Amino acid sequence: MQLLKDRIRSDGKVLPGNILKVGSFLNHQMDIGLFNEIGKEFARRFKGVPVTRILTIEASGIGIACITAQYFNVPVVFAKKSKTKNISGDTLVTSVKSYTHNTTYDVVVAKEFIPSGESVLIIDDFLANGCALSGLVELVRLGGANVAGAGIVIEKGFQQGGSDLRARGIRVESLAIIDRMESGQSIVFRD
Amino acid sequence: MQLLKDRIRSDGKVLPGNILKVGSFLNHQMDIGLFNEIGKEFARRFKGVPVTRILTIEASGIGIACITAQYFNVPVVFAKKSKTKNISGDTLVTSVKSYTHNTTYDVVVAKEFIPSGESVLIIDDFLANGCALSGLVELVRLGGANVAGAGIVIEKGFQQGGSDLRARGIRVESLAIIDRMESGQSIVFRD
Repeated sequence: MQLLKDRIRSDGKVLPGNILKVGSFLNHQMDIGLFNEIGKEFARRFKGVPVTRILTIEASGIGIACITAQYFNVPVVFAKKSKTKNISGDTLVTSVKSYTHNTTYDVVVAKEFIPSGESVLIIDDFLANGCALSGLVELVRLGGANVAGAGIVIEKGFQQGGSDLRARGIRVESLAIIDRMESGQSIVFRD
Repeated sequence: MQLLKDRIRSDGKVLPGNILKVGSFLNHQMDIGLFNEIGKEFARRFKGVPVTRILTIEASGIGIACITAQYFNVPVVFAKKSKTKNISGDTLVTSVKSYTHNTTYDVVVAKEFIPSGESVLIIDDFLANGCALSGLVELVRLGGANVAGAGIVIEKGFQQGGSDLRARGIRVESLAIIDRMESGQSIVFRD
């Protein structure tokens, strides 16, 4: 998606440690016009694929998922990163390792919001090592639903998550795949 | 907002301890059609008020804020509940007490995303004791920006937050104000 790649090149900041900062338009300050273009592109790529709901994970996936849902006419559910008082009753839970924060956390969703037999599109802002996305796939399967695919805004193609998930048969559509990035140098995208 | 009140009555669940569960349409599973009606209503109520950006807080405010932003044509910024590795540089920070989780947490936003002189509309799903909303007002003022007002989906009118903030001169527009709720009984809304 050229508009997105251009925006990453102009406004993204590469920091040491393979960190790409896109907080000025994607995951802290959010450009809703861009999000609408992202939503349209996900709808184009998943055209013809049955999608009955969208699943994402708090916090930075939520805005993209909600805007995208307008192009699928489906509800959005967001998984939470730990069990809170406001989720009661039957829940689906899986454990996810976070390399960013060097910790492991539970990802939780109310069972009633992943109904069995549904076809669930997973949306998230980033895909790197694939731990969060694998956790979301696991939640969908624990609920007895099907994974329609995963729509990712930015994939770090030099990390293993994307290729691992595709090898497991998950259709992963990433709107910008970064093959190489280094501080002070121009970002190299996959064609 | 009648559509919202009807939805709270039909799908909300009142639990002991003044807990209202609206996770089936507002803050876990999200009804994007309803969010669009909410966004339109906020735009109607704040018509004529200058709004240059929307500020919300993770996680459940984000979806409502992003859909609402489409009716104001402004960017959204979400405050984070603790300092993460991905926020660097100058930040605005304030401390917020959470009665739900019986703890105190920092609310953080990058200073560059609350530019001085801007007119900021705060959006959130719930207003009860007002601690989170007061924290967001504080962040806007720390950045040297103006609070255009606060758009709240559900206000617990039997708690002090709304009246306290209005007494401090903040324009608070709540789409449904609950005056009384008890488990097993019909919810009483303010007219």
